[in-house]
Amino acid sequence: MQVYDAPLRDMRFVLDELHQDDGFGGIPALEEFTPDLTSAVLEEAARFSREVLAPINRSGDEEGCHFENGVVRTPEGFKEAYKQFAEGGWTSLASDPEWGGQGLPEAVSKLVEEMSCSANLSFGLYPGLSHGATTAIEGHASEDLKRIYMPKLVSGEWCGTMCLTESHCGTDLGLLRTRAVPQDDGSYRVTGSKIFISAGEHDLTDNIIHLVLARLPDAPKGVKGISLFLVPKYLPKDDGSIGPSNGVACGAIEHKMGLKASATCQMNFDDSTGWLVGEPNKGMAAMFTMMNAERVSVGIQGLGVGEAAYQSAVWYAKDRLQGRSLSGVKNPGGPADPIIVHPDVRRMLMTMRAYNEGCRALSAWVSRALDAEKHSPDPEVKQRAADFTALMTPVVKALFTDLGHESAHLAVQCYGGHGYIRESGVEQYARDARIAMIYEGTNGIQALDLVGRKLGAHTGRYLRSFFHPVANFIEENSGEGPMKPMIDGLARAFGALQLSTATIAQRGLSDPEEAGAAASDYLRLLGLVAMAYCYARATKIAGLKLLFGTDEKAFYDAKIKTATFFFERILPQTAALFLQIKAGKRSMMALDQDAF
Amino acid sequence: MQVYDAPLRDMRFVLDELHQDDGFGGIPALEEFTPDLTSAVLEEAARFSREVLAPINRSGDEEGCHFENGVVRTPEGFKEAYKQFAEGGWTSLASDPEWGGQGLPEAVSKLVEEMSCSANLSFGLYPGLSHGATTAIEGHASEDLKRIYMPKLVSGEWCGTMCLTESHCGTDLGLLRTRAVPQDDGSYRVTGSKIFISAGEHDLTDNIIHLVLARLPDAPKGVKGISLFLVPKYLPKDDGSIGPSNGVACGAIEHKMGLKASATCQMNFDDSTGWLVGEPNKGMAAMFTMMNAERVSVGIQGLGVGEAAYQSAVWYAKDRLQGRSLSGVKNPGGPADPIIVHPDVRRMLMTMRAYNEGCRALSAWVSRALDAEKHSPDPEVKQRAADFTALMTPVVKALFTDLGHESAHLAVQCYGGHGYIRESGVEQYARDARIAMIYEGTNGIQALDLVGRKLGAHTGRYLRSFFHPVANFIEENSGEGPMKPMIDGLARAFGALQLSTATIAQRGLSDPEEAGAAASDYLRLLGLVAMAYCYARATKIAGLKLLFGTDEKAFYDAKIKTATFFFERILPQTAALFLQIKAGKRSMMALDQDAF
Repeated sequence: MQVYDAPLRDMRFVLDELHQDDGFGGIPALEEFTPDLTSAVLEEAARFSREVLAPINRSGDEEGCHFENGVVRTPEGFKEAYKQFAEGGWTSLASDPEWGGQGLPEAVSKLVEEMSCSANLSFGLYPGLSHGATTAIEGHASEDLKRIYMPKLVSGEWCGTMCLTESHCGTDLGLLRTRAVPQDDGSYRVTGSKIFISAGEHDLTDNIIHLVLARLPDAPKGVKGISLFLVPKYLPKDDGSIGPSNGVACGAIEHKMGLKASATCQMNFDDSTGWLVGEPNKGMAAMFTMMNAERVSVGIQGLGVGEAAYQSAVWYAKDRLQGRSLSGVKNPGGPADPIIVHPDVRRMLMTMRAYNEGCRALSAWVSRALDAEKHSPDPEVKQRAADFTALMTPVVKALFTDLGHESAHLAVQCYGGHGYIRESGVEQYARDARIAMIYEGTNGIQALDLVGRKLGAHTGRYLRSFFHPVANFIEENSGEGPMKPMIDGLARAFGALQLSTATIAQRGLSDPEEAGAAASDYLRLLGLVAMAYCYARATKIAGLKLLFGTDEKAFYDAKIKTATFFFERILPQTAALFLQIKAGKRSMMALDQDAF
Repeated sequence: MQVYDAPLRDMRFVLDELHQDDGFGGIPALEEFTPDLTSAVLEEAARFSREVLAPINRSGDEEGCHFENGVVRTPEGFKEAYKQFAEGGWTSLASDPEWGGQGLPEAVSKLVEEMSCSANLSFGLYPGLSHGATTAIEGHASEDLKRIYMPKLVSGEWCGTMCLTESHCGTDLGLLRTRAVPQDDGSYRVTGSKIFISAGEHDLTDNIIHLVLARLPDAPKGVKGISLFLVPKYLPKDDGSIGPSNGVACGAIEHKMGLKASATCQMNFDDSTGWLVGEPNKGMAAMFTMMNAERVSVGIQGLGVGEAAYQSAVWYAKDRLQGRSLSGVKNPGGPADPIIVHPDVRRMLMTMRAYNEGCRALSAWVSRALDAEKHSPDPEVKQRAADFTALMTPVVKALFTDLGHESAHLAVQCYGGHGYIRESGVEQYARDARIAMIYEGTNGIQALDLVGRKLGAHTGRYLRSFFHPVANFIEENSGEGPMKPMIDGLARAFGALQLSTATIAQRGLSDPEEAGAAASDYLRLLGLVAMAYCYARATKIAGLKLLFGTDEKAFYDAKIKTATFFFERILPQTAALFLQIKAGKRSMMALDQDAF
């Protein structure tokens, strides 16, 4: 059974307690958003997720999207839910008030995103993609375009998309063929076919605004010849109402492993009118603006599904009676004990829990940095926050989606045979979560981004935004005391990370394939260290609370126990990753292509 | 695209070369099956898999099974394929000639099983379950029952099933409620409902023979009160033809994540006539006879899907052009290089390859032991072989299915966005492979079987059947030389395994939850060491071949490179597993049930 109730207490912990001294300081522009206010937002979002989004998750998966004569219809209930979502202001939480947004911190908005991903990942894609498109327009489009499109996108009256992939090119966008021909009035005629366009066509909004990568005539070859265009489904009239259709057609929707209530469209642009967003041939820069925002969000999709999978597994593990506890009968009145008593079931539940709380803690830290990057009055802080988000964006995207997928499969495993049956709902989590490891840049591409672009940038400056606080924390907290085993564990894993970094930097200089060969293991190593750091800090905070007295003993006690499990049962993965990285590319690249 | 051609060269390697000096010696009863003869069988099986089974794998997944008015119809092509399968003698390869079988070695039969699992896992379930049922009848039924049922089951004219699970009990069969009431004529009336019955009802054969766990009146509670019954769908007449129907009805088929062409049935027995198989109240013993045979087969399902996933991923990685090699352009005439040039793609391909070849090598060793257990003239060898298969059965089941599932997901990842689309065929592998981690005892149950039943049995005698050859091999091959890094790696991992064994034995004595907490990690650790041992032996054989000259340089060279990759990039997982085992149960069991 799909069970989900937003983990509000843990959300308030990462928002209000965990990262208050993370070095990004207070942000005056966001001070009006007090804990009382943000708690109210989170509680309302929790209610909305539980009452509106979750109930149409399973039915959406069964029904899927419909495609007839170019028209896409979302599953029953989605249109009404979207209407409520937009009316409730959920599309505009962190958007700029200039365009009608509410200007809330990203740190709050990302928690709300997590909730909708938990409750209904397919649904979340529609406003999610729109958010990416809005970010690109806000960052790169002309004032005219912003004036026309931003208010309607921010309000959710219209949706946006990102049209990048073509059938022969996904990762390697340099190969793309869609063409844009300039017109006398400053607009362009865009022609080409795109695939895998999430929310490319649907019945949730009256208009859909496509951001399309295309080539200008005589553009340079490769990625240096790509420009970004805004192409609406219907051309807006001067009064903002919908005008004539614009040669944009959905040719088909894909039949996918999961995420079936999200329409994944083949989109055809046939002399469609569009407008340039950003500079000619600089489309990749504008694209990366939306892509980077999306990548953090995709990471949060992994966390969201992982949390729902965890809760659903806990429900089952308490409900399902099977076997007796190895340490003596726990449910003497029943025919058997609930399976939560069995160590191997605990192993799975604790693993999911430790992944989720660790991801949430790291995500909150990155969100704080996103806010500091946008709003901090201190240029040094702003820069450091930007460095940190640049470094962590691929980590959040790849690690969280890997772990979310693992969690979903652990939940299936907890259900045994029942988990394989569609009715149980947990196999949907596993199918839905799978795409997040692929889209917005496969996790392998994220790892290459980390080692290829981020590690060496500005002679390691991005990396220092992460290494410095960790090193300082270890130094400040070393010595005897109850934290010692954890600090030792963190120091050991951090040492492995530093050594791995040096190895990659050194080998990668003379042979970029060495960096490529280490990339995926390195990303996971770095991410696990970051989670360990968050857990160590959380333990310190929780320990102090317990020491000085608190009404919430159970919460802080559980936090320390989960952290301990993470250190004892998850962090050891870093030992293997270190050895794998050290082995280098040799055996990986040894086999002739013909020998495969 | 689903691509599969049986890896015949590697199969011949594990069959004819790798395990010839494994200590089980020659088996006179099987000497007639020369390499020439078994090669011919394997080649014909490869053709059958490629030409008959593989072409209906994708279509079977799309169409699924049909259920109308109690009648189950398999997807198009399955009935015809099954007819050819049975006529070709593929149901009876390793069966006893007394019943019409061909008496081939298990070592050959298991390779043929691997092929059908690669080509079409759903199809393989129909004869596969039949094989388990046949094993139980052969081992425990009366001569009368054998005479009636064995020939038709061995020939494939009829199919068999295993009816264990009920809706409220899977792992904990002690809770089952199906009843059997003795009749004056020595038969029983069986009444009850079973779920998750693979091949419970279908249109492939005229009759279906169910092996049903049920309780006699006044049977003791729990697993000690379970008996096994043979219940045919139609009662056979004296001449062996089909007589009246027997109150056996299919109530529904399940809608599952995958394996859609395999009918998973809810079966209702309503005063159905059955006969006792084995002793009253000793049904679990008879059930374990079929279950153990099935568990090895399920492990091979994992390998089979992993191999097909690997081949499909290799095909795509050579075909898909995207990006340029980091070490210089490799396909100057094309718009981009094939993605197989990229280290991270290589990482995925090599991981799948190393898993598959390692599983195949270990599986062949276990199959040799199955043959020695059945046919060796030497009682000491027979016992040692039985010990070894008892130890390795849970390892093969759980490790191979875990790795097969990992491989299937790596294949999806190699395909990028295209892998998430049903049309590509690779996501089917991921969905199909998922069930193998669950059925015939979840992988957690396998791990408990290993640490709880197998480790301590006869003061560690089962374990010695594995530890002795490994220790001897390390001793015989230590010292300077080209094998040194590999022998060192094996010795290190083996040392971790020995230490872990001692830790579990010691802690488990006073606290069985400690053994439970270590079980899953220990199973993987033991399995990886077993694969490493096989790889080290394979490397030695390949090295000698290359030294003394061979026509097959490419094969042996690739074997050594794959082995090296396994040691450098997979075996380090044992470092993490060791630390996780060492951590014990503490943090796993610390959290109060209410805190979840």
